[in-house]
Amino acid sequence: MTIKDVAEYSGVSVSSVSRVLNDHPDVSDQVRARVLEAVQALHYVPNNSARDLSRAQTDAIGVIVRGAGNPFFTPIIHAVEKEILQAGYSMEIHQISADEDELAAGASLARAKRLKGMILLGGEFDYTPDKVAVLNIPFVCCSYTNSFGTLDKNTYSSVSIDDEAEAYRAVRYLTDRGHRKIAILLGAVDDRSISELRYKGYCRALQEAAIPEDPSLVEEIDYYDMHVAYEGIQRLLERRQDLTAIFAVADTMGVAALKALHDAGRQVPEDCSVISIDGLPMSNFTIPTLTTLEQPKDELAVEAVSRLIRVLEGKGKNGHLYLQTSLREGGSVGPCHR
Amino acid sequence: MTIKDVAEYSGVSVSSVSRVLNDHPDVSDQVRARVLEAVQALHYVPNNSARDLSRAQTDAIGVIVRGAGNPFFTPIIHAVEKEILQAGYSMEIHQISADEDELAAGASLARAKRLKGMILLGGEFDYTPDKVAVLNIPFVCCSYTNSFGTLDKNTYSSVSIDDEAEAYRAVRYLTDRGHRKIAILLGAVDDRSISELRYKGYCRALQEAAIPEDPSLVEEIDYYDMHVAYEGIQRLLERRQDLTAIFAVADTMGVAALKALHDAGRQVPEDCSVISIDGLPMSNFTIPTLTTLEQPKDELAVEAVSRLIRVLEGKGKNGHLYLQTSLREGGSVGPCHR
Repeated sequence: MTIKDVAEYSGVSVSSVSRVLNDHPDVSDQVRARVLEAVQALHYVPNNSARDLSRAQTDAIGVIVRGAGNPFFTPIIHAVEKEILQAGYSMEIHQISADEDELAAGASLARAKRLKGMILLGGEFDYTPDKVAVLNIPFVCCSYTNSFGTLDKNTYSSVSIDDEAEAYRAVRYLTDRGHRKIAILLGAVDDRSISELRYKGYCRALQEAAIPEDPSLVEEIDYYDMHVAYEGIQRLLERRQDLTAIFAVADTMGVAALKALHDAGRQVPEDCSVISIDGLPMSNFTIPTLTTLEQPKDELAVEAVSRLIRVLEGKGKNGHLYLQTSLREGGSVGPCHR
Repeated sequence: MTIKDVAEYSGVSVSSVSRVLNDHPDVSDQVRARVLEAVQALHYVPNNSARDLSRAQTDAIGVIVRGAGNPFFTPIIHAVEKEILQAGYSMEIHQISADEDELAAGASLARAKRLKGMILLGGEFDYTPDKVAVLNIPFVCCSYTNSFGTLDKNTYSSVSIDDEAEAYRAVRYLTDRGHRKIAILLGAVDDRSISELRYKGYCRALQEAAIPEDPSLVEEIDYYDMHVAYEGIQRLLERRQDLTAIFAVADTMGVAALKALHDAGRQVPEDCSVISIDGLPMSNFTIPTLTTLEQPKDELAVEAVSRLIRVLEGKGKNGHLYLQTSLREGGSVGPCHR
């Protein structure tokens, strides 16, 4: 029994059968169905070992998702997969916790699956050349930058928003509406990561509005857990009953903030405004709708994949791209009444 | 350069190096770090073709996620991966849209990756023996059943909640509080899938309370899109201003229902109660908190993986398990005031 028999039975070309058996995306559903029907009818088992030997290297791209369970990544993962398959590559994905090492995970995956390139979806912001050497294949940082690291810009690519500038924009949106007692909810002001960058943008906007920084308006919490964010806001509200606005550095925190404010008897936006960054689907359905800077999730995915593939195919060099958010005006920000 | 050199350089055993290179989970972070350091320092490249030849079959389990982007699956995927790795297997995951064919996708993945078994996370409820023959490896339906199909129960496993019984329980919770004009928001009453099962449970609870079925209280919508659910509720509210409660068959719909009710000027739960099934993280943070029957997501994952592995290792037979939801009493259901 050979692939020729399958082709004959199903009435399609040998190369079509091969594409179906190799899980190649460039096959119509009809052809795929006919081939699979033939495979089933003939009880054909592909000779995988032979196939693997003939391919010294695969055409697989790895995706390491750091922070599995973070809803921000869900639509990006889907868009990344679509792009990878459309470009004729296959995808190997591995999801790790936010406290795991994406470079070690990436290195393992790259070796185990003989990957050509890698997309890191979430990771540390402070890589050194030593740390990333373990990867040994082209890679793209998707949705984050190497702002605190020492990598040579020519040795990798990144596609993300400009965290400092977008945070500035969010807080500026509040100061423009008269707010001066503006709290920030974030991971840590000195995490050498996304929170530190967004904290810098917060400080710049305050400075421009001649508002002194006030540590008691800064609430540092564990990043992704909505329950923890909720408790953080509770502490903040007890400590500073005079605050009039909250900048939550992520939508998950913003949603938790709306709930904590409501439970504390504070009206949004009359008694307190809330703005955040991300644009998760769920924040369209909060009461009131969360005002947020929406990340261009599809564009992040498309740009990350296309940049990586250009590098893999020798058609382009590594590069670094900032994409812009778009302001989604909900109902959670109002003018300051105090 | 051989694996022995790497072992010598890193000061660990050859088998430890092998485990690291094969992405085996049973390695401490320290050992992994030392091996990867050695691999890097020595520029060692594993001889993958040789390795593949020596393994006629892999120890990989495939996971097909149907409905990528459905937040319900996010925590289950993570738990499934953890279980698979802990059991000493590797995981190959492929995410497809809700309108794609999980059996065709699974068959492709199984062939391409020489999988030992498969977990289908979401899928059709009406498989025939012909349809599933293409998989040709043991599989588990995770979070759904084959209630409308014709499979021999001994040929596959399933782990899910009892959709009919849980829907009955949700609606019974409403009728017990005096509600009689109870709307249902679902995919379709005859979709031969989850909506049809939950609709049956809804009808049984109505019947028990001697409430006649009323088609104008049934709103059929596209399943996963919260915007579409929102519009469905708007139509429902226009059509039936006298309804006092809504059973949304999924949390995403329940969250959208809270928003649509609020925007229509209806107080929850005073003017209208809402209950759903799922227990997504976000529904803890709605205003009011959504009352929902929480699915045992970790248990679904653990049971699906352990059942599959018992079958793979000849230690057990295929079986079918219903897990129970737990009622999370939020603030979205109150007594009927009319």
